[in-house]
Amino acid sequence: MPSTDLAFADRDSHRRWLAGQAALPGGFRAGTAALEFTPAEAARPARMRLALIALDRPTPAFAAVFTRNAFPGAPVLIGRRRLGGGALGAVLVNNKISNVCAPEGVERSERLCAEAARLLGLAPGEVLPSSTGVIGWQLPIEAMVAALPAAVASLRRDTILPVAEAILTTDLYPKVRRAALPGGASIVGIAKGAGMIEPNLATMLVYLLTDAAVDREACRAELAAAVEGSFNAISVDSDTSTSDTVALLASGEAGPVDPGAFRDGLRRVCRDLAEDVVRNGEGVRHVLRVRVRGAPDAAAARALGKAIVNSPLVKTAVAGNDPNVGRLVAALGKEAGARGIPLDPARTRLTLGGEPIVDGGVFRLDAALEARLVAHLAGAELYPQRPAADGITFRPPVDFPRHERCVELGVEVGGGPGVAEVLGADLTHEYVTENADYRS
Amino acid sequence: MPSTDLAFADRDSHRRWLAGQAALPGGFRAGTAALEFTPAEAARPARMRLALIALDRPTPAFAAVFTRNAFPGAPVLIGRRRLGGGALGAVLVNNKISNVCAPEGVERSERLCAEAARLLGLAPGEVLPSSTGVIGWQLPIEAMVAALPAAVASLRRDTILPVAEAILTTDLYPKVRRAALPGGASIVGIAKGAGMIEPNLATMLVYLLTDAAVDREACRAELAAAVEGSFNAISVDSDTSTSDTVALLASGEAGPVDPGAFRDGLRRVCRDLAEDVVRNGEGVRHVLRVRVRGAPDAAAARALGKAIVNSPLVKTAVAGNDPNVGRLVAALGKEAGARGIPLDPARTRLTLGGEPIVDGGVFRLDAALEARLVAHLAGAELYPQRPAADGITFRPPVDFPRHERCVELGVEVGGGPGVAEVLGADLTHEYVTENADYRS
Repeated sequence: MPSTDLAFADRDSHRRWLAGQAALPGGFRAGTAALEFTPAEAARPARMRLALIALDRPTPAFAAVFTRNAFPGAPVLIGRRRLGGGALGAVLVNNKISNVCAPEGVERSERLCAEAARLLGLAPGEVLPSSTGVIGWQLPIEAMVAALPAAVASLRRDTILPVAEAILTTDLYPKVRRAALPGGASIVGIAKGAGMIEPNLATMLVYLLTDAAVDREACRAELAAAVEGSFNAISVDSDTSTSDTVALLASGEAGPVDPGAFRDGLRRVCRDLAEDVVRNGEGVRHVLRVRVRGAPDAAAARALGKAIVNSPLVKTAVAGNDPNVGRLVAALGKEAGARGIPLDPARTRLTLGGEPIVDGGVFRLDAALEARLVAHLAGAELYPQRPAADGITFRPPVDFPRHERCVELGVEVGGGPGVAEVLGADLTHEYVTENADYRS
Repeated sequence: MPSTDLAFADRDSHRRWLAGQAALPGGFRAGTAALEFTPAEAARPARMRLALIALDRPTPAFAAVFTRNAFPGAPVLIGRRRLGGGALGAVLVNNKISNVCAPEGVERSERLCAEAARLLGLAPGEVLPSSTGVIGWQLPIEAMVAALPAAVASLRRDTILPVAEAILTTDLYPKVRRAALPGGASIVGIAKGAGMIEPNLATMLVYLLTDAAVDREACRAELAAAVEGSFNAISVDSDTSTSDTVALLASGEAGPVDPGAFRDGLRRVCRDLAEDVVRNGEGVRHVLRVRVRGAPDAAAARALGKAIVNSPLVKTAVAGNDPNVGRLVAALGKEAGARGIPLDPARTRLTLGGEPIVDGGVFRLDAALEARLVAHLAGAELYPQRPAADGITFRPPVDFPRHERCVELGVEVGGGPGVAEVLGADLTHEYVTENADYRS
């Protein structure tokens, strides 16, 4: 990460770039519909969007990985079953309600799939459902069924952008990435996810579409490998969603492609989308990139990197452009102590923005270095914090990614072979505002 | 927890109660001194306090447990050595700088011990040092040595309250708890700690003094047992300090006491201090108490409880008095999924404020229940959030604990024997303000 180094001056230029990313591969159509309902569990009306991705012909070449959360949503339970089925012909997604531990959760989700399948001329088991949003509420099944024909009627071949927008919840902007493959084929991926982000073998909702002809076994092997170094290496807030899903569908329309080119393209799209998810995380003003070297193995390296990006004290210090480097050591030491990862203080070396701050296990700090570290942190800020007009409510002032710069942390902990790259985010007033009353 | 159910109407009544708790057991004296210095690592002058606890006669009956952080502070390294020594005659604590990974860290801390020992007529190895504060800076050794005579001159037999105040950093108020023992003996404990709080076998700085005659073996066994259910069962922000220390010193002045009464008193003081640390945690407006039952074992029960109180999404929802109960399920499921703890959804039952919210793995929610849950959360608030006058800086409006009410969570996850009680805290704008520029 990253494979790109983009910068956008305003919302319009970002939206134009997104439109270029969003061209659908051959053999796919995409559409959306909106509905209003009043949840039984709350007093106020709410809005929901449906998003539909349809294949011209159901494909046996698909793969999906799901959350390891022990309370998976009903669509995840259904999705695991779909993996054993013969083919997929459509994906149906709703936002606003995640359908987790809800009464009749599986029944309602299956009924939606059956209705969509009927409208599309598919078998019910050929529709993969996804839901994201509030946990605990029931799907408003009648209103959703009533909105399905509008979603089918809106299906179009040119762009996935409306679907990338329809699946969002607290995200500030859609996330679309594409890789061109030799011979005119492509891979296009979309993602949603801004909070409850520390995926464990998957991330929020990610859909990867390709017209390359790849078989089912290749889809599943390549997707599993690609998520390891991308969605499984990020954390916004250390919370693992109950709905995490990454699905890959291959229409085959463009014929076979070089397997190496497909692998590279898939990994690049996954890495870029994973970084997009962090950059657009709830209240994120800084993305942290931690490169760990010298750990006993890759798992230990990733655990140490995650410990840094998940430390509330590191995250708040970064939010304040405060190079409180002592907290990096505390976070590393906590994880190593708790997991029994052997660290050699004499070989420990930390850098921030390329500047050595700990060498041989000892801090090397002075006032001039401090000023350079502050400048590095300030330079990676995605937007400046604005005082809250009402004294309490903080909102990000931008809804596009101004740049792709990160707070760069280097961590060497010894002479072992374990390396990892982990992305995380700061912890800001905007995050607290977003989550102190999310459902309202 | 808790063994008390206190409430205070104002700062003065809390301070009066503290003064009553703070009477020193026989055989101890306590004193403090203040100093100013300019850190080499920063431009602005800073203030530090020294705190000294001295025994009339060095005692072989002492115990201490330290952080499991893999980058322990120099005083922790020295303290581990002291455990093998013959006796302790004094404890010397400084705030403002934690002396972790600092150049000459151990040398400077040992020199302070030697100077204090000389002034008190002790051997250098009979002084236990502690440091807390910024990680990365060096101790200002000359200024500290110069302030030691003033600390010795201030030693007094009546109260530990000035020491309980001198060891604070971001704490809003001192934490002192006592247990009276049969026959006139007592146990008095003090604690500091408000951030970087998820102790692993100890907590920030805790000193427990008793005039009961207990031998070294009993001190060590009873302390190890007492910290398990107290300091090891709390988390403010999931960060484990590099300086965590809990020390118990017995002067023996009051003669032998019933071992059961000593054990009960020690555990009560530890539990109460641990709860005080959470209640006074950085930016804490709500204390969460999670009681877990039915887990496979006690370790799994504690891990599930910790997962709930460490979830940023649970913590921010509680901060907003928002009963976003779906996040409880997500947090439980994340931990169980990641650790492979078997959960039986059909036997999962959650309560909030005594109200069932999940039963048989399914949510039981309606608008009337929602209103009762909001009232429970609001009733446990320690103080109301005030809009920031400058739009950014949030400060708690009180510096005393108004009450000891908690947000009460019940979690049943199956039929196993594992139970645990875990205390945690919400995540507020006050926490972000406190930690975005802590060192200034």
